[in-house]
Amino acid sequence: MNIDGKPYRTIWPGADGVSAEIIDQTKLPFALEIVSLRTLQDAAHAIASMQVRGAPLIGATAAYGVALAMREDASGAGLARACDVLAATRPTAVNLRWALDEMRKVLEPLAPEARTAAAFARAAEICDEDVETCRKIGEHGVGLIEAHAERKRGETVNVLTHCNAGWLATVDWGTALAPVYMAFDKGISVHVWVDETRPRNQGASLTAFELGAHGVPHTIVADNTGGHLMQAGLVDLCIVGTDRTTANGDVANKIGTYLKALAAKDNGVQFFVALPHSTIDWTLDDGRNIPIEQRDASEVTHMTGQLPDGSVATVAIAPPGSAAANYAFDVTPARLVTGFITERGITVASREGLSLLYS
Amino acid sequence: MNIDGKPYRTIWPGADGVSAEIIDQTKLPFALEIVSLRTLQDAAHAIASMQVRGAPLIGATAAYGVALAMREDASGAGLARACDVLAATRPTAVNLRWALDEMRKVLEPLAPEARTAAAFARAAEICDEDVETCRKIGEHGVGLIEAHAERKRGETVNVLTHCNAGWLATVDWGTALAPVYMAFDKGISVHVWVDETRPRNQGASLTAFELGAHGVPHTIVADNTGGHLMQAGLVDLCIVGTDRTTANGDVANKIGTYLKALAAKDNGVQFFVALPHSTIDWTLDDGRNIPIEQRDASEVTHMTGQLPDGSVATVAIAPPGSAAANYAFDVTPARLVTGFITERGITVASREGLSLLYS
Repeated sequence: MNIDGKPYRTIWPGADGVSAEIIDQTKLPFALEIVSLRTLQDAAHAIASMQVRGAPLIGATAAYGVALAMREDASGAGLARACDVLAATRPTAVNLRWALDEMRKVLEPLAPEARTAAAFARAAEICDEDVETCRKIGEHGVGLIEAHAERKRGETVNVLTHCNAGWLATVDWGTALAPVYMAFDKGISVHVWVDETRPRNQGASLTAFELGAHGVPHTIVADNTGGHLMQAGLVDLCIVGTDRTTANGDVANKIGTYLKALAAKDNGVQFFVALPHSTIDWTLDDGRNIPIEQRDASEVTHMTGQLPDGSVATVAIAPPGSAAANYAFDVTPARLVTGFITERGITVASREGLSLLYS
Repeated sequence: MNIDGKPYRTIWPGADGVSAEIIDQTKLPFALEIVSLRTLQDAAHAIASMQVRGAPLIGATAAYGVALAMREDASGAGLARACDVLAATRPTAVNLRWALDEMRKVLEPLAPEARTAAAFARAAEICDEDVETCRKIGEHGVGLIEAHAERKRGETVNVLTHCNAGWLATVDWGTALAPVYMAFDKGISVHVWVDETRPRNQGASLTAFELGAHGVPHTIVADNTGGHLMQAGLVDLCIVGTDRTTANGDVANKIGTYLKALAAKDNGVQFFVALPHSTIDWTLDDGRNIPIEQRDASEVTHMTGQLPDGSVATVAIAPPGSAAANYAFDVTPARLVTGFITERGITVASREGLSLLYS
């Protein structure tokens, strides 16, 4: 998508042919800084420090990390070590492990001297495949927005989204936001309600930034607000992403997603989940069995932002003696989900629905 | 309630007999500062700048404001001017207008030289009446917590609350938290999940502070978290306050209340609203007719807290070009409310339920 009119991806090969470049997402929304990854350690640091985040982008960065490692040591031991270092950066990321497996599959049969070029080529392919997957999600989902535009005779269609499932979480397009970008690029009048998404504020910082940079009208709201917006008829449909989808259609996504799904159901508002097939966990058939990650309490008790002088600072927002809990995800039962928007089409949120597309 | 073992109210007559003292709530939770109100302007400033907030406390402060004004000018014109100045501080506060009417009713028939003493006396009465109302809410509500404690055979009872409906919003005890304080003081093991309550963070700053200061175990969570907590069986009951209750039992309260009520319903968790009769608006019989205040967007895009050096600072947390919307309240329909906890007892959230207590 565009930043001030110029098309970007979140990761791309450097012009020198031996590096990869990324947008440092820890600096957003206040500064656009491009970082060049030149070594395995650079790539591992980018993932661990969340300069890159979002499952597909983490996978793509790991793939480039293996390619950068091959330049230093293309032996079998070097490949194994690179995969170990990268796998340890975000222990629970499924896409990360998938990307490393892909790289190993391609590189292991090759002679060491052929590995570097092959690794860069496969990393580029992984990126292109992700872009194509997200583009297809957009193509399938844009019809939902078009239908509302038609029904409203061209009046603005209001989409509510939670967290960041936009192009910054992928290589391009995003998942939940791909249909929005496609609608906007087609000239449909679309506006996005952006949930702030406490405690890590991915909505206020990343989603608002990327929508604004591409020119898509949007409004940030506190996470508490979506229920009132739906009661007031100010939301036509919700589209969110997912971290993990069970075989029966339950959806684990950023904490707070469940509350919006309840409000959508209560107000007859459509609630769609956009997902690439890689998030489906066929081994789980009940969302209640998904373990919920707990993160550091300081993400709740402290907030990072920009001081008037332009510097970035972290302030405490709770009494020093108070405990805080930080559950990162919740599970939205399939019964609250209107449908899944996938790269293979739209389907109902159930085992049967998923089987129709992925049999 | 106590702060570090010492009992406080939120407002009390100064030892000199001609002032009123308050806790400056804009300094919480990082500093406990007592401010002495000596003039009408001091009182008006305290309300307008939100050194005091919460409907009952605003009313009590306005009453003392009239008393302070009588010391300067006890004429009829002086009384009228004091009421005008105070009424203009928070134009939509119902209790503020009620307290000013009370003061006028008592003072207008008196000779000017009798007004100052009578005004201080009536202001003190208004405070005592509020304390008694809240104490009764606590007495009626504590049984709900005791019932859970019995059912759980003494295991900790988990209460979820939203915003601040504690003693800092009233003169003492609070509304939603009165049953919690009473349970705690009786030795019942009780723990409170405190919703942060974006965008103004009254939960993380005020509710967490007052619970901690009194010694009540509590945990701050992002507003997104309550649904997951209820799914996981970690909430026994919700108790919230209300800004305005319609004759049919709909409840206007801090934005986000509705989302928690939906989650409670979906998980079979009790959802109680604590209220003094002064919040019932008998002229409205549908919550959808309550106008929803919109506040400044900067409350969403900026956050105030404490820097590591102890100073207080405000940081921007959203991209400068992004719009934000700030709806202050939402309406929870009566069908989602298990019951009302009032100073006259517990009743169902309906016209019939309210009529039983207030006929």
